[in-house]
Parts: sequence; structure tokens; C-alpha cells
Amino acid sequence: MTNSDAIERYRKMFNSHLESKLIPKDPNNLYEPISYILGLGGKRMRPVLTLMTTDLFGGNPSDALNAALAIEVFHNFSLVHDDIMDDAPLRRGKITVHEKWDINTGILSGDAMLINAYQYLEDYPPEVFKPLTILFSKTAVEVCEGQQYDVDFETRDDVTIPEYLKMIEYKTAVLVACAMKMGAILAGASEEDAQSIYEFGQNLGIAFQLQDDYLDAFGDPKSFGKQVGGDIIENKKTFLYLKALEFAPKEDKEGLMHLYSIQPEDSNTKVDTVKTIFEESGAVEAARMEIESYTQKAFATLESLNIPEKNKELLKVFGNKLMQRTV
Amino acid sequence: MTNSDAIERYRKMFNSHLESKLIPKDPNNLYEPISYILGLGGKRMRPVLTLMTTDLFGGNPSDALNAALAIEVFHNFSLVHDDIMDDAPLRRGKITVHEKWDINTGILSGDAMLINAYQYLEDYPPEVFKPLTILFSKTAVEVCEGQQYDVDFETRDDVTIPEYLKMIEYKTAVLVACAMKMGAILAGASEEDAQSIYEFGQNLGIAFQLQDDYLDAFGDPKSFGKQVGGDIIENKKTFLYLKALEFAPKEDKEGLMHLYSIQPEDSNTKVDTVKTIFEESGAVEAARMEIESYTQKAFATLESLNIPEKNKELLKVFGNKLMQRTV
Repeated sequence: MTNSDAIERYRKMFNSHLESKLIPKDPNNLYEPISYILGLGGKRMRPVLTLMTTDLFGGNPSDALNAALAIEVFHNFSLVHDDIMDDAPLRRGKITVHEKWDINTGILSGDAMLINAYQYLEDYPPEVFKPLTILFSKTAVEVCEGQQYDVDFETRDDVTIPEYLKMIEYKTAVLVACAMKMGAILAGASEEDAQSIYEFGQNLGIAFQLQDDYLDAFGDPKSFGKQVGGDIIENKKTFLYLKALEFAPKEDKEGLMHLYSIQPEDSNTKVDTVKTIFEESGAVEAARMEIESYTQKAFATLESLNIPEKNKELLKVFGNKLMQRTV
Repeated sequence: MTNSDAIERYRKMFNSHLESKLIPKDPNNLYEPISYILGLGGKRMRPVLTLMTTDLFGGNPSDALNAALAIEVFHNFSLVHDDIMDDAPLRRGKITVHEKWDINTGILSGDAMLINAYQYLEDYPPEVFKPLTILFSKTAVEVCEGQQYDVDFETRDDVTIPEYLKMIEYKTAVLVACAMKMGAILAGASEEDAQSIYEFGQNLGIAFQLQDDYLDAFGDPKSFGKQVGGDIIENKKTFLYLKALEFAPKEDKEGLMHLYSIQPEDSNTKVDTVKTIFEESGAVEAARMEIESYTQKAFATLESLNIPEKNKELLKVFGNKLMQRTV
């Protein structure tokens, strides 16, 4: 079976498990938005990673279905609350929960999802339930902290690259890492192996988010899925922006800072000018190197793992596919 | 030692434990609102109940401090999110989190508190951690459901008394019940005893909320702590309102429904008229009987408990004090 077939199989397994849990319940106004957001689909990357990790560590992926569900429901909780905070009208091309219902519904349904996520772990015996729950809570708090840093950065003009990397690590990477570590725990992996696969997920997650920043400016509008240039239009201080500020000559730096203080109605000229500064300053090259560096760091953690070499290869294939966005 | 002394001792124990956990942390914008709301005080009724229950079941109250903290932090999470939903300017006489900061801060700090609450349970060994966490999650979901029913009732004109009782059970009583059951679990009580004390807390919690409804209309402005008549001014469909609709003659019923569709600038006449209908219809008498009935139901569950008779007496004294609001 090829790697893509396996991923498709995990995704199907997960989706049928998810569907079996989305039973209409009272109060309807609380649970309908939950079914709605979870039903919008998406790639299910995180739960797929949980099932795949259990499989590659010699466990039975079915045993990891509830952990995968906890991860996906938590991820969707964070989307619902973040969309309120960002005033986002669309999610996965569909209207957001707080727009379809209202802000109060978004808050309360989100809260219920966060609690539900914990409840999906209840099927595991106490000595597994506890480490899973501790890992889950630690990750969940870090995701909130990452979101707070992201909010704080909007009004700060002295954000450093290490601070930015910590923000994306918390906001995005730790949940990927947690998804994989849970999979390893459920396959009965050693502490060391569970920690290594955590670091694999964490570094790959950072690389993935850095690439998301890059693609937001330079991606193919046909395959990227979001509005290309969106971060620039919204003056979002990404890795590219921070590196350009560091590298660009004084004049370009001032031009960039000015462009990031305005929101012109026709954003085309702004987007083009900013992209040119990103390229000419060397920020794009720096981003490419950083992405490669985190990807290689992820791959290096695979060396020590006590799993068959062919399974390590499968993780590398997955990592490479993810970075080419063909998963 | 008298009962009041004991309660004061639990409260002090709890408050110093809470203080020891409120250490400033980064990101400050996430954690400062948490310290703020938890520092506003309040009677700490729920955590005191956890410590008291552990004590009365022969355990060591110190062992229950983290469970008590989980309960109190969860309670404050629900206040922060409810205050956003209710657009409330004040909480415990102080400005609410979303007013002092903003709605996004209220959402995100609330989320972090909910996760923190789970984390406080991590000190317990796996075979205690799991039942505590299961009970906690079940309760937390019910509190969300209760809040949703409360929101739903605002726009419904066919709310029944059983629906109303279920709403206050979920929104208020189950957390009191959970606080006590956790205390019993931590003292090593039997399943039966833990369940009985849960029911004690549940019934006492319903009685307490019904009395809160009563005092909102007929309480002494000096001791009630909230604006007397507030529920009437806000057209809140409480037990008194629903019973009055059931009992009042056609003319009064229509008058009442009309008054609950308006919000006059000078509310004095409205409040007085509504209170007269509440009394003359027999709704006040029905509320008194219901409060007494739930209180007696609570006391009846104490009979079967395997704890010393004098400890049952202390629980009754506490229950009676609570219903007289002198705790």
C-alpha cells in the first residue's frame, strides 16, 4: 500500500468515527453549531497524524480514534473562538459560526467543544487517560498563549524573530506535535520515542507554518486555498516581514513600515511593492532556508526512533509531501 | 469548634492556596485578567463545600485544595464568558473582564481558565484523577447546556416549570453537587455516599437558586447584594413569573405578559405591579413551598450517609444557613 493510500484510509476511518459521534442533541442551539463546524471538513491533518503514528509505532490505529477526535474537536474549538476574535466571515469557504449564528453562540458552542474534547479521552484506562490528558491540557494552554501572542503582536512594532517563532510554535506546531505523541503513547512507545515524535511534529509544524507565511505571499492562487497576499493586505507581521525589516536598506525598511500602516482600497500596488521588498531584501531566501532547516531538524529526530526503517521513511515521505502541500 | 469557624477556616485555607497559584506569567495579557477575576473574592462557597465535604467524610481537607481550586476556577471561567454573553458591566461590584479589557480578552482568558481548571486536578494519582476529571467534564458540559437553555428561554414564551427547573439545575446546582462529590471522592467515600452527597448538593443548589429568584424580587436591598427587582426589570422569566402565569386570573396574566414585553425608563411602577401579581397569584407561596421541598429533599439524602450523625447535623446547619444567606 502506498503512503497516500494509507493517509486516505486513516482519513476515512477518522471521518466515519467523527460522524458516528455527531448525533443531534439538546439544546439544539448549542450542538448544531458544533456539528456544523466539524462537518465543514478540511484535510483532517492532525487526527490523520495521530492514527498514522499509532500505526507506524506498531499499534492499532482504531485504538487512537478517540484521541484523534479529541485533537480535531479541540482544533475546531480554537477555530471557532479565533474566528470571533479575528472577526473572520469565512472558514473553509463557508460562513463562520459566529456569523451564521451570533457571537454568544460561538463562545458557548466553542466552550462545549473544548470540554467534549476532554471527554473523548475518557475511553482510555486511568494510566493512559492521565498522561494523555496532561499532554492535551499543556498543549491547549500553549495554543491559547500562542493566540494571545499573535493578538499582542498586532499592536507591537518591536516583535523579534525568536518571539515570532515561539508564537507559531505555540499557536500551530504544538498541536501537531501533541497529535503525534498521543499516537505514540497509544501504541505503547517508550518515553524517549514519544518525545522524539513530539519534536518531529513540532519542527515540522513550525516549517509548515513558515511555509504557509511564504505561500500566503508567493503561492499559486489556484492551489493555496486562501487569498494570496492576504497577510500583506492585513499588515500581518510574518517571518517575511520581520526578516525584511532586518535585512532591507533604510529606504526600503521605511517604505515597508509605511505600507504596513495603511490599508488602501486597491491593494494590488501595495502587495506587489511589499513582495518586491521581501525578495530583494533576502527575506524570501531566509524563509526558504528556515523552512528547510526546520524540516531537516524534524527528520533528524527520526534517527533515534525504535521503529522499522521503512516506517521512518514513510514519516519522511509524509513530511516532504506536507511541505509540497500534496498531502 | 463551631460550624461558622470551620467554614471561615476552609475559606482561609482555600484563599491562601489560590493566592499561591496566582503568579504573574507571560503572556501577561492572558494571565492578568485571570488573576483579576479570581482576586475579586466572593464567598468561595463551592471550594469551601469541597473542603468541608472531605473533612466531614473523614479525609484531610488539604488533599482537596486542588479539586476546590479546579471548581472555583471553572466557576470564574463561566462568569467571565456569561458576562460577555449577558453584556454585564459589573461583577461583584467591580468592572467585568470584557469591559476592563475587551471581549477577545474575555474569551481567551476564559478559555485558558477552563483548561487551567483541568490542570489543577493533575496532582491526583491516575485512579483518582480519572473519576474526578470525568465528573468535572460532565458537570462543565451541563453548565454550558444550562447557560444555553437560559439564553433560549429569553426568546421563548412557552417555557414550562420543569424546563425552568432543569435549566437552574444545570446552570447552578450541578456545580455545587460536583464540588461536594469531589470532596467525598477525595476522602475515599463509597460510590453510594459520593452519589448521596452529590444529590444533597444538587437539591440544595436548586433550592438556593429558587431562593435567589425570590430574593431578587422580595429581598432586603441592604443584604441581597444585587439590585432588588433586577430580574423583573430585565423581563427574566423566573420561577415566580412562570408560576404567576400559571396561577393568575386572565386579566393579571395579560397584564404580566405586557409588563414583561416593555422596559420603561422608570421601572418602579412596573416592579411594584409585578410583585403584587406574584404575591396575589400565589406564585410567592408556591416558590416558598418549592424551596422548602428541595431543601427537605436535600436533607433526606443525608440519612443514608455512612458518616457520624454529628457530621450530618453540620451539613444540615450549613444548608439552613445557606438558605438564610448567613453563610
